[in-house]
Amino acid sequence: MPLDPQFVERMLAGDRVAIARGISMVENEHPDAVALLRSIYPKTGKAYCVGITGPPGAGKSTLTNKLAKLYRSQKKKVGIIAVDPTSPFTGGALLGDRVRMTDVELDEGVFIRSMASRGSLGGLSKTAREAADILDASGCNVILLETVGVGQSELDIARAADTTVVVLVPESGDSIQAMKAGLMEIADFFVMNKSDRAGAEQAVMSIKTVLGFKLHGEGWMPDVLQTVAQDGKGIEAVAEMIEKHRASLESAGMLVKRRAVRLEERIHELISERLHVTFWNASREKLLSSSMEQVLSFKTTPYDVVEKLLAT
Amino acid sequence: MPLDPQFVERMLAGDRVAIARGISMVENEHPDAVALLRSIYPKTGKAYCVGITGPPGAGKSTLTNKLAKLYRSQKKKVGIIAVDPTSPFTGGALLGDRVRMTDVELDEGVFIRSMASRGSLGGLSKTAREAADILDASGCNVILLETVGVGQSELDIARAADTTVVVLVPESGDSIQAMKAGLMEIADFFVMNKSDRAGAEQAVMSIKTVLGFKLHGEGWMPDVLQTVAQDGKGIEAVAEMIEKHRASLESAGMLVKRRAVRLEERIHELISERLHVTFWNASREKLLSSSMEQVLSFKTTPYDVVEKLLAT
Repeated sequence: MPLDPQFVERMLAGDRVAIARGISMVENEHPDAVALLRSIYPKTGKAYCVGITGPPGAGKSTLTNKLAKLYRSQKKKVGIIAVDPTSPFTGGALLGDRVRMTDVELDEGVFIRSMASRGSLGGLSKTAREAADILDASGCNVILLETVGVGQSELDIARAADTTVVVLVPESGDSIQAMKAGLMEIADFFVMNKSDRAGAEQAVMSIKTVLGFKLHGEGWMPDVLQTVAQDGKGIEAVAEMIEKHRASLESAGMLVKRRAVRLEERIHELISERLHVTFWNASREKLLSSSMEQVLSFKTTPYDVVEKLLAT
Repeated sequence: MPLDPQFVERMLAGDRVAIARGISMVENEHPDAVALLRSIYPKTGKAYCVGITGPPGAGKSTLTNKLAKLYRSQKKKVGIIAVDPTSPFTGGALLGDRVRMTDVELDEGVFIRSMASRGSLGGLSKTAREAADILDASGCNVILLETVGVGQSELDIARAADTTVVVLVPESGDSIQAMKAGLMEIADFFVMNKSDRAGAEQAVMSIKTVLGFKLHGEGWMPDVLQTVAQDGKGIEAVAEMIEKHRASLESAGMLVKRRAVRLEERIHELISERLHVTFWNASREKLLSSSMEQVLSFKTTPYDVVEKLLAT
């Protein structure tokens, strides 16, 4: 079944229904998803992609929401991809966050999509990046990729984004943890949200102290901004810092380099998928299942079965 | 370099230094790791593997610790693999958990290993399963696989374990979240830890109510036990329930089936790794890097480069 060219055209023209359908195609690994991504690839590369990560309750969604409103006031089209690693234990809090984004949801210039990463083998980065490509090709100027920082997800976001913002709050002592856990390497800058709370100044100082020991490379020095996203305080400074970081990447030729790395990764992933599908034909599947009895009875090992399969 | 047979022998005899070295080999993807796993495979299949998962702060490590002590009193050798998905934001709490395990750490019959899953592409399941194989072949009778349930990790644990225990606490409302998020499917039974706290009875009742609507398949009905792990209360009942579940799996022929599924998954993973390594020879790497300029300038697409690479 060839792709419907009218559907692709509507998507590229920014039709919300077509965009939603395109993203569902990549999310569900629809057989035509690759053909779709291939056909829109020449239209990509215009949007700037900002990753926003941090602990649960840091106010990432509120910040994302306010940033989207600011970009809208500058007549930019905004795509928001909220990736939820579906922790069974924080699901409620995340849903709470979602609700707070409703005041940009009705804006025709903002496209919001929540994605669950649970169970997807390639991790969230692949699907989120493909969704970002669709939003990019469909005319979004800025794409905000938001995810809670647990496990692997914040690294995936950093790999997918041009600029990565790590959002923290004063009270939780997260700032020191973040430093220890190597968030230094992914944060292009930090936002201390809820800065009207006690301890904000000390938390900012402690991050700055640690930052002082390291330079980020390529001459960029990550700073710490303070916001009260709920009241809209400090949002403009965040947008300005994103712009500043973008300019720094561009002047150093790093924006192209980062994109090249992402594209090479994607080619590697696509090759792996294809090799897998090609390898597991009916006769090899049959050989595997007929060998399982011997493996289970310890007459052979999984490693010998692998050799046998590769020899066919 | 062939494997040192004396090292393998020491490992199989339960030498702690050799076991630690073996696990490090699989963790670091040492070139000899596959040869090691292949040579010990015939000695595996004797240990029973229990997965213990739940939200941060539920007392998983304390429960694991107390279970290990109980098994030691039954003269069983115990392996503990504590998998830490390295959240930058909960790192501290997890380290706190680790400390509480010190009272079995000095016991020669208990082998404890912490593993970080951060950054490992195959996820924690592969390395944890390989480490479990080493502990199994080295004479452990019971292996306790402990991980905090965030994102993917609790699913990985369920895939690696024979019996999966989901640990909850009364106050957090996690029980309902757990139900919603499909933990039903991975929990062979639930433990309501810290059951001396307010709300324990209601929390247990709410889980039981939801459980009442579903049967677990194969005739097993997951129950909810109550513990105060810190005081050692209810630990024996947990061990008995594990034994009961094991007997149920065995009588239904499910234990062999679950192990067959795991071994097939491992064979799939090993094949994918080998296909990847074989494919990316120097000439294909060169073709990829020479195509990147055209991809970046939109003269071709990543998808066309994939076709070109596969055609060589």
